[in-house]
Amino acid sequence: MKLEVNRHSATPIAQQVEAGIRAWIEVHGAGGGRRLPSIRHLATTHHISRNAVIEAYERLVASGLVRSRPGSGFYVADSAAALVSQPAATSGLEEVTNGLWGLFSANEHTLKLGCGWLPSDWREGDDLTHAIRQVARKSRSGIFEYSTPQGPQDLRGLIQERLRPLAITADAQQIVMTGGGSHSLDLLVRMLLEPGDVVFVESPGYYNLFGLLHLQRIRVIGVPRLADGPDIERLEVLLAQHRPKLFYINSVFHNPTGSTLTPAVAHRVLQLAELHDLQIIEDDIYADFQHTPTTRLAALDGLNRVFYLGSFSKSLSSSLRVGFIAAPPEQVQRLVDIKMLTSISASRFAEQVVTTLLQNGSYRKLIERLRIKLANQMAVALTMLKNAGWEVYTQPAGGMFVGKTTGSNYP
Amino acid sequence: MKLEVNRHSATPIAQQVEAGIRAWIEVHGAGGGRRLPSIRHLATTHHISRNAVIEAYERLVASGLVRSRPGSGFYVADSAAALVSQPAATSGLEEVTNGLWGLFSANEHTLKLGCGWLPSDWREGDDLTHAIRQVARKSRSGIFEYSTPQGPQDLRGLIQERLRPLAITADAQQIVMTGGGSHSLDLLVRMLLEPGDVVFVESPGYYNLFGLLHLQRIRVIGVPRLADGPDIERLEVLLAQHRPKLFYINSVFHNPTGSTLTPAVAHRVLQLAELHDLQIIEDDIYADFQHTPTTRLAALDGLNRVFYLGSFSKSLSSSLRVGFIAAPPEQVQRLVDIKMLTSISASRFAEQVVTTLLQNGSYRKLIERLRIKLANQMAVALTMLKNAGWEVYTQPAGGMFVGKTTGSNYP
Repeated sequence: MKLEVNRHSATPIAQQVEAGIRAWIEVHGAGGGRRLPSIRHLATTHHISRNAVIEAYERLVASGLVRSRPGSGFYVADSAAALVSQPAATSGLEEVTNGLWGLFSANEHTLKLGCGWLPSDWREGDDLTHAIRQVARKSRSGIFEYSTPQGPQDLRGLIQERLRPLAITADAQQIVMTGGGSHSLDLLVRMLLEPGDVVFVESPGYYNLFGLLHLQRIRVIGVPRLADGPDIERLEVLLAQHRPKLFYINSVFHNPTGSTLTPAVAHRVLQLAELHDLQIIEDDIYADFQHTPTTRLAALDGLNRVFYLGSFSKSLSSSLRVGFIAAPPEQVQRLVDIKMLTSISASRFAEQVVTTLLQNGSYRKLIERLRIKLANQMAVALTMLKNAGWEVYTQPAGGMFVGKTTGSNYP
Repeated sequence: MKLEVNRHSATPIAQQVEAGIRAWIEVHGAGGGRRLPSIRHLATTHHISRNAVIEAYERLVASGLVRSRPGSGFYVADSAAALVSQPAATSGLEEVTNGLWGLFSANEHTLKLGCGWLPSDWREGDDLTHAIRQVARKSRSGIFEYSTPQGPQDLRGLIQERLRPLAITADAQQIVMTGGGSHSLDLLVRMLLEPGDVVFVESPGYYNLFGLLHLQRIRVIGVPRLADGPDIERLEVLLAQHRPKLFYINSVFHNPTGSTLTPAVAHRVLQLAELHDLQIIEDDIYADFQHTPTTRLAALDGLNRVFYLGSFSKSLSSSLRVGFIAAPPEQVQRLVDIKMLTSISASRFAEQVVTTLLQNGSYRKLIERLRIKLANQMAVALTMLKNAGWEVYTQPAGGMFVGKTTGSNYP
């Protein structure tokens, strides 16, 4: 590999190396598994510092284009195919999931970047334990029976109430309970897309979704994520080139940049969606960490072409597996059918535990405490990053993510 | 519709009418939604009794070919397309699931035929409640964290032990925890099949699977289920005509006939599978109701081309959503990858509750009591059916199902 490196350019060497490797992958094929030159080799042959190469590789790894295999070197990731806009390959899924997999098996001392999990010592057990014991004691159907196809009516009513402050007017009949955010995404991908369809995602974005789309043989195109939401200019250009069926957006406290959609960008996104007959998945699983509600696509659109996703995995418990979709009314029945065919039902027990915590007010108090804690820790993290000379992508108003523009992704 | 009815034939009129309507659907297209003649119309125009027409329609409804809409009449079911061996259509899933749906929303007084659910007053709450409280009290990770990708090691070890009396030698590394039997089926269908592939199923068979295969655009061919397992002669004929990738078999206490696979048929099925390079899903979710183990395909085959499915939904709790797949070793990683991409993880809490009950011996005692109860009730049911003049398909040795050859499917 021979990269063009200009020592007199205003562009830092690391960024030139990154761009060079990215271009090389696009030209030489992004099928995955191909080994890339070692740090030492690139530094020596190009007469540049090893730190510049390390930084370039770390950025490529963070972007999902390159995979690091400890003790062995760097390889083109299988997910690279999706990221450079070619039809997704159908094999080698293990490559896509390896990164995540490691983190799921990792111990509590591993820093789990991009995962959006609360530290285990932040988890407050008392209310949850109490609710679990209460359901176990009081509800025979809760511990034994399948849930109803759409999920319990009372729980959907409580979620309807929770969406009201976000100005999302969803009837309980429009809400379908699921087994968490990933399950929601899977149901929607199966309902809305065919193999070969084009989907726009935000770049950087949610890694596991790229793998899911790859599994379903969807063509994935990345739209750059800016501090105020997706890059509208770029979105317009891409819409002129492609005919996507769907756009996936993480509106608030975006993973991994921490940025939040502004009203103006939300409005433009919906105008373009209307013009190009595009459906939207608004993934809002970090919603409960937000103190003062900001604009949601689902609120502007009135759940017309937007499917809105929520979850209790990030705030309350990742173990219970409870999430939901608020859907356009005419899509609900088909969504429920696909849910039944593929899983029969969600866990009635878990749903009743969440219902209990929503009803008795514990959940509201829990997330109020979490918001304050997260805001405090975000301030500390931003100060530390600033002192270490790192530039951040945006100053998040809350949530769990802060993105960087330079420096290492690793501690 | 003009049916051939021969009053002097040895074949009962009802069966002639059934065969006639079935042929009519095959000839006129099984796209679904088409209205069929009323009971009165058919009886009048063919000079036959209304009871014969009613019985024919009831058998067609039970087979999934025809759908009854109360107050409106009979219609070709959308699932009919799959049942008459044409490529599955892609719309109208709601038709496939309507039957099941009603039962999930029905109250406790509705007789839920073909569902395999224990009556709610048979459910014993004490041990389960105790285990739930114990996990809630003792395990922070149990109530809060995602599970591991494959499921907890200790639980998989306990399942390995439970498979030993069935002569299934699966290492814990070959076992993947899932969110129940339907989730297991969905994962395997996605891993093993492409749209347009052919799958053999038993006929009659598990209704929800037909809908799932329909959703995934799989071509479904029915192999008649006899009292000793699938009809081997017919299987050989069908294998000469089609190139199926997969054969789905409910080996023990088959839903809905109650029949159990014999060793000789199991052996022949595996020989044919070898010859035609066919993979097999052995759905054994009623295994724990069997007192004396009989031959399993997974035992003969050594988990080479057989995927073995188990579940705790039928015996312990349908609410917790815990099942498993024992898979050929080289297929495990990909199965886990697809599980992660589509649902991230199963419920660690539910898995720990099941682990607790397996470890402390409560589960073993629970299913021993259930086996005795089911055997007693089966004897009572068989006597009642005999006294009512009904002929049963086979005399089940246990389990929850008894099939009929004549008479009504409704109480």
